Amino acid sequence: MAEVVRGKQEIRERVAAARAAGKRVGLVPTMGALHAGHRRLIEQSVAENDFTVLSVFVNPTQFGPAEDFDHYPRQLEADVAVAAEAGADVVFAPAPEEMYTGDHSTWVDEETMSEGLCGARRPGHFRGVATVCAKLFNIAQPDRAYFGRKDYQQVKIIERMVRDLDMSVEIRSVETVRGSDGLAVSSRNSYLDPDKRRASLAIWRALKQAAALILGGERSPRIVTDAVRSEIVRDGRLRVDYIEVVDAETLEPIVPLEGRIVIAVAVYCNHTRLIDNITVECPKPE
Amino acid sequence: MAEVVRGKQEIRERVAAARAAGKRVGLVPTMGALHAGHRRLIEQSVAENDFTVLSVFVNPTQFGPAEDFDHYPRQLEADVAVAAEAGADVVFAPAPEEMYTGDHSTWVDEETMSEGLCGARRPGHFRGVATVCAKLFNIAQPDRAYFGRKDYQQVKIIERMVRDLDMSVEIRSVETVRGSDGLAVSSRNSYLDPDKRRASLAIWRALKQAAALILGGERSPRIVTDAVRSEIVRDGRLRVDYIEVVDAETLEPIVPLEGRIVIAVAVYCNHTRLIDNITVECPKPE
Repeated sequence: MAEVVRGKQEIRERVAAARAAGKRVGLVPTMGALHAGHRRLIEQSVAENDFTVLSVFVNPTQFGPAEDFDHYPRQLEADVAVAAEAGADVVFAPAPEEMYTGDHSTWVDEETMSEGLCGARRPGHFRGVATVCAKLFNIAQPDRAYFGRKDYQQVKIIERMVRDLDMSVEIRSVETVRGSDGLAVSSRNSYLDPDKRRASLAIWRALKQAAALILGGERSPRIVTDAVRSEIVRDGRLRVDYIEVVDAETLEPIVPLEGRIVIAVAVYCNHTRLIDNITVECPKPE
Repeated sequence: MAEVVRGKQEIRERVAAARAAGKRVGLVPTMGALHAGHRRLIEQSVAENDFTVLSVFVNPTQFGPAEDFDHYPRQLEADVAVAAEAGADVVFAPAPEEMYTGDHSTWVDEETMSEGLCGARRPGHFRGVATVCAKLFNIAQPDRAYFGRKDYQQVKIIERMVRDLDMSVEIRSVETVRGSDGLAVSSRNSYLDPDKRRASLAIWRALKQAAALILGGERSPRIVTDAVRSEIVRDGRLRVDYIEVVDAETLEPIVPLEGRIVIAVAVYCNHTRLIDNITVECPKPE
């Protein structure tokens, strides 16, 4: 059974003891509601380190006022069981007051890679993400931290933060886990009934088709995004928030498409916002 | 002789070796042009730790476009001699390119305590300060870092940053060192000829008089700042940038004056901007 720790000081001590014993420390930062994607992160951390901290914290500062903070699924007991099964050593599950004082006033702002994609639609979201990750890195002082590539922009922003602020943690990004039907696993999938889930399969189908287009030689981002859009809106139950094709490293638009690119989408199915992405290496022109 | 290290990786290794040998590490972050104030910081670090890193870096991101970045005094050789004399173990003097990539995009923003005083007059200044301190803390990973109280707002912002981002460094603030004439020592004092230096003595004289006023029972911030202003502008060679009386912890205006307060001023003597402050414990009303 992985032990649950509520206090920053206590988790610091646990990690310090592990480190004093010569152990390498992995951190898997999550908002709980653990699924197979988180499980893969934990397993990879366990494989690459000697001591794995799972953090479970629904971070209020990364939710917009109209977003689902209040309704975000919380299920610590189940999460602790998953953590233990996957091999985590300790679960850090702080209360909001443990993480933020009433007069909290310091923020980490990444200002280039946060501009487009989800950053443009969720003002303040990545400020909240970067700030809480900086805090968690400072509290747990891991050698490595694990993030899923479903949140592609998040991974790139965290990597950039670590580079720019000279943090001594290695960011490991882990491939998106999908259901056998192809849908990227997400805590928000629990909002989908079977019918909506079926509708949502168009997202991954569209991304795969778009990747095939590019591998077939297409270089126009407009043609690629139009193809993704028409596949996604086809049956009428999904609404596009954005579809963008960007450079996989800088997250900047690139015309014509060249090098390693990412097609990233956010889609609403009723009130549920789903994101997904696919990375494609554009074939070199002959 | 204190050794000069130019690279982040090398200073990390030097500190890691010291730590592995059980040494406590102190960091004194400076922009060089070392004076008696810095010397006191180094000496205190040497007294309280086993290994002292002095950083010398004229941080471009904390200067405004119209400020004196290009002309800021640079004298590494002399600084290294002072560092050695005061007992520092190593001088970290990175080139600007070692600290900032061309596409640097992550900033640390303290948004409450940075609003008034120097923050209001030097937009972006404390963002630059907080960001470079976060970087230096992450690079040198000190147990303690030392700052002079002449830059009172800076100290409070760094303390807040450390608290809010859960950094594991203890901030030690050290009393302002003054010349025998009372002028707070500052690298920018080198811009003053003897006549301007004489004029500048009004700053500390005004602050002491204001403190006496408060200790005598005055509770009106307006009366206190008016008194400081009239003393400072009296002979016509100083121009006031700001005079503020604020709570010593929150840096917020406080009317009537109560508890521990700070009178902080910034003054121009020709093109040279000088700052100083005095802390006063308001006597309890009878």
